[in-house]
Amino acid sequence: MSDPISIFALDGIPEIHPGDDLAQLLGDALEGTIEAGDILVITSKIVSKAEGRIVEAADREGAITAETKRLVASRVHKGGTTRIVETHLGLVMAAAGVDASNVPDGTIALLPVDPDASARALATALRARLGVAVGVILSDTFGRPWRDGQTDVAIGAAGLHVVDDLRGSTDAQGRVLEVTVPAIADEIAGAADLVKGKSTGRPVAVVRGLAAS
Amino acid sequence: MSDPISIFALDGIPEIHPGDDLAQLLGDALEGTIEAGDILVITSKIVSKAEGRIVEAADREGAITAETKRLVASRVHKGGTTRIVETHLGLVMAAAGVDASNVPDGTIALLPVDPDASARALATALRARLGVAVGVILSDTFGRPWRDGQTDVAIGAAGLHVVDDLRGSTDAQGRVLEVTVPAIADEIAGAADLVKGKSTGRPVAVVRGLAAS
Repeated sequence: MSDPISIFALDGIPEIHPGDDLAQLLGDALEGTIEAGDILVITSKIVSKAEGRIVEAADREGAITAETKRLVASRVHKGGTTRIVETHLGLVMAAAGVDASNVPDGTIALLPVDPDASARALATALRARLGVAVGVILSDTFGRPWRDGQTDVAIGAAGLHVVDDLRGSTDAQGRVLEVTVPAIADEIAGAADLVKGKSTGRPVAVVRGLAAS
Repeated sequence: MSDPISIFALDGIPEIHPGDDLAQLLGDALEGTIEAGDILVITSKIVSKAEGRIVEAADREGAITAETKRLVASRVHKGGTTRIVETHLGLVMAAAGVDASNVPDGTIALLPVDPDASARALATALRARLGVAVGVILSDTFGRPWRDGQTDVAIGAAGLHVVDDLRGSTDAQGRVLEVTVPAIADEIAGAADLVKGKSTGRPVAVVRGLAAS
């Protein structure tokens, strides 16, 4: 068999509030657990909270509009109308990622302003604190056209290749692969969701054993 | 930390040819390795091969048309035109899953006729052979609108819940989740792709440690 990869959810992450030092809290939880090459998958919601991206819920529709670069589609359902939009970050998603789950009553969370920068800052701080290089992925939950349910994908990353561009390499028959670009970071984010869950209060997972990239 | 899940690629699967007894070959490779509750993720290509879903490549466009229920979109690029279609199975994907990679020169592979039935048959045969209940997912590689790269998703499954319908349950604040339906089987298929790779000749992965479902 191949060397296994292992994935586990991290204990010891407290409820996050605006202004919390997330790198320090992650460092506390990872001390003695982290290994070089580990990839941390962090639910973007707790980054939003630490960065103060929590606003009053009164103007949810206005918040979505402010986060929107382009309306892609609208879907009317019994709860109202959901807008699928492209955000200023270039993410195409429902409601621009504006979300009321797992935040205090009367508030909503916006996505981090620059998830790649947030991931880089966390990776840098954790390396300084723990002495090992880790990858960091900020994940969020996306629906998919033509597929039931949602999967977690990467909205920001640092310290790893987010895609594995195999175009030009060959398959087992020696034939050149022309379109194959596995979306590694998205597959890692989805894998992490299998252990984090949506209601467990464990917003961080560690993925161990992937070849360094 | 949570109990970890582990994922590894299975060694010992030979090149598959039409008419091969895939359940027997999988059983040989899994003997002494498999544990109750494991989920096998099997690249659908080897199921297509075993089931004889390999045709001459001369009429690739005709094969795509035959597999198509509805044309969803056409995309022109330097290599020609790619059709995104809905297959008779209800899968929306490029070229109806018709694929020339990892098959003999001059041939193309079609998707299994009934991937859920193939998964059920394999799960049943493996339970009889190995004495343990396992989940089986048939995976294939899909592009995604508005996201770079591809991820592996489940096109057939047996012995597990393919989605985890959390609608009606509550988040950490006690608020009812209204749309949350994690696509577990797709996240598992994507996780398995992290160890299988596209060019390693290891088309089967074992996912261990997911709560029985």
